Parts: sequence; C-alpha cells; structure tokens
Amino acid sequence: MERISQSRPAGTLIETPDITQDELQLAVRNHSMPLEALRYAITPPGLHYLLIHFDIPAVDAATYELAVGGHLEKPLHLSLEDLKSRPATTLAVTLECAGNGRARLSPRPLSQPWLGEAVGTAEWTGTSLAPLLHEAGLKEGAAEVVFTGLDRGVQGGIDQFYERSLSLEDAMRDEVLLVYAINGLPLPPQHGFPLRLIVPGWYGMTHVKWLRSVTVTDRAFDGYQQAAAYHYRTVEGDLGVPVTRMLPRALMVPPGVPDFMSRTRFVPPSIHPVEGRAWSGRAPIASVDFSSDGGRSWSAADIEEALSPYAWRRWTTLWDATKPGEYELCVRATDAAGNIQPLEQSWNLEGVQNNAVQRVRVVVGEPDVEQIAADTR
Amino acid sequence: MERISQSRPAGTLIETPDITQDELQLAVRNHSMPLEALRYAITPPGLHYLLIHFDIPAVDAATYELAVGGHLEKPLHLSLEDLKSRPATTLAVTLECAGNGRARLSPRPLSQPWLGEAVGTAEWTGTSLAPLLHEAGLKEGAAEVVFTGLDRGVQGGIDQFYERSLSLEDAMRDEVLLVYAINGLPLPPQHGFPLRLIVPGWYGMTHVKWLRSVTVTDRAFDGYQQAAAYHYRTVEGDLGVPVTRMLPRALMVPPGVPDFMSRTRFVPPSIHPVEGRAWSGRAPIASVDFSSDGGRSWSAADIEEALSPYAWRRWTTLWDATKPGEYELCVRATDAAGNIQPLEQSWNLEGVQNNAVQRVRVVVGEPDVEQIAADTR
Repeated sequence: MERISQSRPAGTLIETPDITQDELQLAVRNHSMPLEALRYAITPPGLHYLLIHFDIPAVDAATYELAVGGHLEKPLHLSLEDLKSRPATTLAVTLECAGNGRARLSPRPLSQPWLGEAVGTAEWTGTSLAPLLHEAGLKEGAAEVVFTGLDRGVQGGIDQFYERSLSLEDAMRDEVLLVYAINGLPLPPQHGFPLRLIVPGWYGMTHVKWLRSVTVTDRAFDGYQQAAAYHYRTVEGDLGVPVTRMLPRALMVPPGVPDFMSRTRFVPPSIHPVEGRAWSGRAPIASVDFSSDGGRSWSAADIEEALSPYAWRRWTTLWDATKPGEYELCVRATDAAGNIQPLEQSWNLEGVQNNAVQRVRVVVGEPDVEQIAADTR
Repeated sequence: MERISQSRPAGTLIETPDITQDELQLAVRNHSMPLEALRYAITPPGLHYLLIHFDIPAVDAATYELAVGGHLEKPLHLSLEDLKSRPATTLAVTLECAGNGRARLSPRPLSQPWLGEAVGTAEWTGTSLAPLLHEAGLKEGAAEVVFTGLDRGVQGGIDQFYERSLSLEDAMRDEVLLVYAINGLPLPPQHGFPLRLIVPGWYGMTHVKWLRSVTVTDRAFDGYQQAAAYHYRTVEGDLGVPVTRMLPRALMVPPGVPDFMSRTRFVPPSIHPVEGRAWSGRAPIASVDFSSDGGRSWSAADIEEALSPYAWRRWTTLWDATKPGEYELCVRATDAAGNIQPLEQSWNLEGVQNNAVQRVRVVVGEPDVEQIAADTR
C-alpha cells in the first residue's frame, strides 16, 4: 500500500513550498474562514474555522453525561439537561487556531497547513465552570483541571482521547464556560455537540470539544496535547514555552474581485473603503495600522467597539487606489499590552503563534483589468 | 511580488503529487465533507461540501430582487417575499462537486484539489421554476435558460459573474427549484443567500448560488462556465462532452480511529459494522459492493431506502476483521442504468467526473496498535 511509505510524522520539516498529500488530507477536512466573512461581527454557521484532530464523534444527547471528578469532595455526573438548568451566560468570543499561518513558514512543520484565516467569532452559550467546581468542593492541593474529549485517535504514536488542562487559577476564571449552544442554536457535531469548553482569549486547542470529563488533579497534567504538543520551541528537545493566549492579529476583507486560481484581486481606480477585524487574547486592541505599499508606510485605521472583551474589533479605513498598478496591502494590530504583529514571521518547530502581518496583492486597473487578468493566468 | 510568478493558470497539469500554494489557497477556503458525516442522512449545517469560485457576495435580503427576463412575454421582478409566497417544495438532494477526486489524478489539473469527499445532502426548500416561467409566458423559440449569480471574479482571463445555463427541457422539470432554505433555515451566506438554484441529480456547478437573474434565451449560452469549463475532454482543443448528471459513487465512514497526520485507521480485531452512502444522478442506486482486499473480491452490502429520488441511500455491511494485519477497504456502487464505478480513474483534462472506488487503509491490531502507530509516524 503506497500511502504508508509517503507518510511522514506530524512535525517533520518540509523544505519545499509544495504541500504533501498528507497535509492535503487535513486541508480538505478542516477549513479556515473565507476572508470576506470578516464582514460579519458574528461568523455565520459553517464559515467559522474548524480543526478536528481525529474524527467527529457520534454522541447521543439523551444518554450523554459529563463526569466531573478527581480531587473533589463530591464528584458529579451531569446530563445535558442538568447543565442547561444552571445559570447561563452568552458571550461573543473570537477563536483562532494556534497553528494559523503555519503553511507560510519555511521550512514548514508538517501538520494542518493553514495560510492565515483560521479564525472565527461566535456567540457561545453555556454555564460557568467555577461555581460547578465550588459546589463539588475542591480538595486541598487541587492544582489543575483536565478536560477530556470523546474524540479518539493516534498522535505522536500515542492512542489517546483529545485532552488538555488548565491551571486551577485559569480554570476558575468567570468567563470559562461549558457551552452547549452557538449563535443561539445547539452545537453542530463539528463544534463539539453536545458540550465543549470555551476559554476566552486562548488559542483554539484549549477549547476542548465533545467533553466527556472534567477532572481536578493535584499535579501537572502530562498528556500528549499538553506536555508534548503546543509549545513554542525553536530547537528540538527544548522545553519550550506552552501556547496559551492569542497574540494580536488583524485581517482585512480583500478588496475587489478575485482571480479564481491565483486569488489576485482586481479593483477599478477609486478611493476604496477597506475593512476587517482585529483581536488579541493578551489585552484589548489599541490600534490598527494599514499600509498600501507592502509595509513601508502606515496609517491608522478607525476601530469600532467589540461585542465583548473577548471578541474582535471591526476596523475601517479608506485606500486611495486612484493610480493604476500593483499594490501589496498590509494590516497590523497592536494591543494595549504593547504586543505588535511582526512584519516577518519568526520560525518555530511546530508552526504555532504565527501572527505576521497579512499581505494582500491587488491590481488597480481599468479598462485593462481583462488584460491584466489574462497575463496573470 | 513573489506570488504572481508562482501562479499558474487553472487547468495547468501538475506532474508531482505535491500541491501548489495556489491550490492550497482554494483548499483552505473550500472544504469537503468529513467522511464520518456520512452517518447523517441529512448533512448538518457546516459539514456539507462547499466550493466557491469567487467571493461570497454580501446581499441585503430587504432590497433583493430576482430578475426573470429574456425571451418572455411578461418579464418579472420578484422579491424574496414574492418567492416565498409561491407554492413551496422541500426536497432532499445530494450534491457532489464535478471535480471531486481531482487531486488523485496524475498529472493533476490545477484547480480545487479535492480528494473524494466533496459531497453532501440537504433538505432544500423553494419554489418550482417551471410554473414561474409559464406565468411569464415563454416566447416561441425559447431554447435555454441562463442562471446568473451575484458572485463576480476573473477566470480563464475573463471578468465574469458566475453563470450557467440549462436547456429549456431540463429547466422545466418539476424538481428544478429556486430555493431559499436549507434544512429548515434560511440559506447561510456560503450556500447562496438569499436564493439559489437546485437541479436535482446534477453535479454541483449547475446549482447557481446568489441568483441575480434567470434569463430565457433563443440560442445556446456561450459563457465561460458553460462553454469553456466543465467538459470531459482528454485532449486540449477537443469539443468534449458537457458535464451534467452525477455518475454513481459510494463512500464509507472509515472504521476505527485515525492517526492525526496519515489518517491511517486502527481497529481492534473483531467483526465490524461498516456503513456509508451511495448515489447517482443517472438512475437509482441498484447495488453497493464492499471489498476488504483492495478490490480483488466483493460482497453485496445491504441498501436502505432514500429520503427522496435525488438523495443518497445508506448502505451497511459487516466486515470480518478478526485477523490482525493491514487491509484496503473499497466500496463500489452500481445504478439501475448499469453505470458502475471504475476501479481505476480514467484521466481527463479538467479532472471532472472522477468516480473511481474509494480506498481506505485500515490496520487491524491489538494489542499492537500503539506499536503500529509508532511505526506509521
């Protein structure tokens, strides 16, 4: 069987810009958010980015139970109805994959080959985790909370259920939710039906889907997705720094119309409004800057209020595109903690926490648009 | 700017199995249906396959109007409310992209690099086109109906709105619908909000999204998507055969659990139920056959009734996987018109109408699953 000899482990470094068949298998299953969907404050169902490590599990809501156990006085078993009868919170939260932008690295770590659009914002409805753990009685020495999904597979040579942990301090924040609805509807299968974790501000790997258990422990969790994966490391074997909260990023709706294959954009000469969204999991977005000359000069964009402290902010600007020619548009976000997007991506082994500025190629031209298009193809 | 020199026209033939950056740009936007979603008779929102040539247009439903004109006695302008007040039909319809399987061809035509899962089934609600055209009064000589979308872009060097035509005979079939709802909800933006065409039995390019106009003509439509694209041709310059109705295809839910990167499957030794769906746009599915030895021997699967004449049929079988080892599972559909899936794909220039049998690699093993997994990565 041919396939097995072609397969290389996740994390293998690929020197060519071309994408392997294994990466393609992930890319046709998972998807990012088409950038024109940045026009929506709340991403419509089906446009939100999606990364699924293993398979989407089949779950029967009627018999579903969440086990809340471990280092607790009174372990609990909760049905979906039990969870829904608790106080509910609805919160707009922006989620971004930790590996967003990975496919632009060179060499490229073998994994899901995101370009830069693995993001989305939804209104999640659920119940806060902290009161539930307080009711169950945290035992002396409780240190971490482990969240285990129903999705199972092999990664790093280990047969595992997907699971991640949070420190007790991070897990007990008010905004950490066990959610059962997205944009006012039950979770669809691919977003974690019937129950998932939402940890506002953190990269996507944190928000464990298809929750089967919540387990309080008195020691650091050493599961694969926590201790091996999701670290920022530049040298194999280094301890590295765990991936946690999202770095700032701004994206724009690419102006004009695209060429089908190259996705090069075409606009007529004019003053064009340009819009997009910006977010950070570290601090509120403080400024967004726009460039139409590939990052040589910048001007401040206008920023609107966010729907919540954990949701992206809309930004708008005007682009003077009256002169025909080729342009490279860029946008760059800075947060209130002083984090700013880099112009060039620094490299790391897993291809995580990439937040280099977006670059969009646009051809301004009329009446030569057709000719330019023909040249491009 | 680097990107433009890397771009090659859609349709360029690529000799290597590796995927170009341009193909990746399409693959991260569009997505197929994860195969485990074959368990659902009606594909949940967000899991249905999606191919968008240009950008998703922003449409205001309040001011939206469909223009019905051309070779008609009384051209019409219809609001969304006008369309919803007409007699409504809800129909389960399986849609498959004409290019499904393209990325498995060698050499590979440069376009959306589908592997084999670009399919989905939804319950579409809308109003039949034929009565509407009758009311508008078809003029003598009416020959074709052209469907034009609001989505615009450049393809084949041509600045165009996406548009396709049907012969008058095909357009006037009862089941051809102008639809405004999917699975009981308004169309989401990516599925054609507020109105799209559904032509049951035909490949996906036919079902024009974001309809702006329906135009009756007295001659053959020669637009790019009709006359240039979507033809089965093996030699450049040949007239070719237009792509129309779907060829038969069966797919299975891959058994067991996957390795994250290679998607190789692992199951413990046992008798395993295997299930999937099969469809054809040419005739009802007559039989589905299953093989666990790469297609050397076959056994008939059980087939269930379809939700409609235009929806896939569920099939089930039992797989004797009691003996550890490596297996290649295959499934093969035959329709009542005698069309049968080929074991090996015949090649064509655009990579359309590929319906070679699915092949799924599975490792049966216990207690060595972990070791096998380690070897695989």
